[in-house]
Amino acid sequence: MPDILAIGNALVDVITTADAPFLHDHGIPKGTMRLIAADEAERLYALMGAGKEISGGSAANSVAGIAALGGSPAFIGRVAADQLGEVFAHDIRAAGVAFAVPAMVDGPPTGRCLIVVTPDGDRTMSTYLGACQELGEADVDDDAVRASRILYLEGYLWDPPYPRAAMRKAIGIARAAGTKVAFTLSDVFCVEGHRADFRDLLAGHVDVMFGNEAEVLSLYQTTDLGAAMAELATHAAIAVVTRSEKGAVVIAGGQQIVVPAEPVARVVDTTGAGDLFAGGFLHGLAQGRSLADCARIGGIAAAEIIGHYGARPESDLRALVAARLG
Amino acid sequence: MPDILAIGNALVDVITTADAPFLHDHGIPKGTMRLIAADEAERLYALMGAGKEISGGSAANSVAGIAALGGSPAFIGRVAADQLGEVFAHDIRAAGVAFAVPAMVDGPPTGRCLIVVTPDGDRTMSTYLGACQELGEADVDDDAVRASRILYLEGYLWDPPYPRAAMRKAIGIARAAGTKVAFTLSDVFCVEGHRADFRDLLAGHVDVMFGNEAEVLSLYQTTDLGAAMAELATHAAIAVVTRSEKGAVVIAGGQQIVVPAEPVARVVDTTGAGDLFAGGFLHGLAQGRSLADCARIGGIAAAEIIGHYGARPESDLRALVAARLG
Repeated sequence: MPDILAIGNALVDVITTADAPFLHDHGIPKGTMRLIAADEAERLYALMGAGKEISGGSAANSVAGIAALGGSPAFIGRVAADQLGEVFAHDIRAAGVAFAVPAMVDGPPTGRCLIVVTPDGDRTMSTYLGACQELGEADVDDDAVRASRILYLEGYLWDPPYPRAAMRKAIGIARAAGTKVAFTLSDVFCVEGHRADFRDLLAGHVDVMFGNEAEVLSLYQTTDLGAAMAELATHAAIAVVTRSEKGAVVIAGGQQIVVPAEPVARVVDTTGAGDLFAGGFLHGLAQGRSLADCARIGGIAAAEIIGHYGARPESDLRALVAARLG
Repeated sequence: MPDILAIGNALVDVITTADAPFLHDHGIPKGTMRLIAADEAERLYALMGAGKEISGGSAANSVAGIAALGGSPAFIGRVAADQLGEVFAHDIRAAGVAFAVPAMVDGPPTGRCLIVVTPDGDRTMSTYLGACQELGEADVDDDAVRASRILYLEGYLWDPPYPRAAMRKAIGIARAAGTKVAFTLSDVFCVEGHRADFRDLLAGHVDVMFGNEAEVLSLYQTTDLGAAMAELATHAAIAVVTRSEKGAVVIAGGQQIVVPAEPVARVVDTTGAGDLFAGGFLHGLAQGRSLADCARIGGIAAAEIIGHYGARPESDLRALVAARLG
């Protein structure tokens, strides 16, 4: 049985590089994730340069990180029975993550995330969800939810209706079984689209919340980060606000723990930094580490990802953490 | 119309890293390319770690390099109408290469090359040819062959019968039209399987021949490189012997031109080094450069490829050459 069970989008990333004007010229907001339909995905892909295909998906990246840290994670998400679906399933299993949801034979193809990396290392994502949207309640393994220490949910997946219902069901099972529920706000656009739902989740359904500064500000519709963090403190038992190169703040038990960012030799591609931070933090939590150590493990995992293309770890994260934290 | 037209395998590379014992344990000869059937491809893929999918194919990599150097190349090869076929077609066009062969709707899937990179940067390739084998005489654009300065052929593609017939047809058209014919020996296993054909090609059908030391020794069944090069000199008008970190030797007009290798900061993955060397050399030749300069351009392009995963250039090769050669 897994220690951490994640539900998320099962995506293959298509990574290319371009200058910022490319994004501007095609009306794509830099640094965010937006959903696109099949025809728009085709149009954008045609405009993009030659790519690298590397398995992705936010929570899927997190659990790949947890496995690389020595944990025993599992993943629930939907791919189609096609080549990119095979790639996703192969890669997540090869990373050491249990993945048992069967590939869909009919229906839309495996989802993909078109990622443009600009010279500053920033990533701009346009996602065609495809088969991801077909994840439903029946795909949630009740026993696995009950047996896990932590259920981790991706805010991105709150958008399509069937996966949302699947996540609601999983939350109900988790709370009845004493499984901790962790949730990431994922993106400002997700918060804008589901602010009421997200606030409601925080008010009693979620034990650990992850968000970056912009997401937290949007959640409470304020421009005052201090006020937003004070608001957060009254809701989630543990809230983690990530601040890129400024590190992270963990809010819990009436206290704020400030953790600086790990050094990064060269920023190549920030895709997956938030995912790996969350994965590292949750792995620490499942191991019973202090909250400060959890945030440092998250920071170490995030720093590794930033140094190369792709959002899955390429180094021995367990050894990196052992070297820095012991 | 293209300046250089290449015929080759249309493959998507699946790149993973592993230690040398992984290859030994699974009976895979390190540093070579071997063909595998669909079931063996599935078995090996299941054993491999998480991968990166990046468009490849030997001659396809060469023409991607030629485009990055400022040339106008075209490519002939077969993909299927599936996701990996879309990826291949997208990437080669995005790289600036004309590619007009339609994707096959029926038949085997797009071919893929399972590449294991060992810590020394060496690559070991297991290729499932799939749709590549379905390339036939009808796919050769006669006018394009006639209009090109150079027709470039990949020895790997001599193995399956339909592509071999297509290449024989293209050679005939090229020789009648005054288009130069360039050919790469590709791999020791190719030379061993087609030694008589390859020797025959060199004796009157090929103007420029590329091979590494092992391939040239195998071609003339000798352990004496000097003897093999003397033999070569009596056949191909221009023969280029690549020697990895020892550089290259160009044999032409009774002379040997020795060109040292370009410096490489860090060897990450040698996949494509030979392909990019050939691409750079042919681009120089099409531009009317001296043979020594052709070899240096090849070396610069090869050195760029060795510094990252994947066999397609990621830097501005034209600028690199301008900075080093003017």
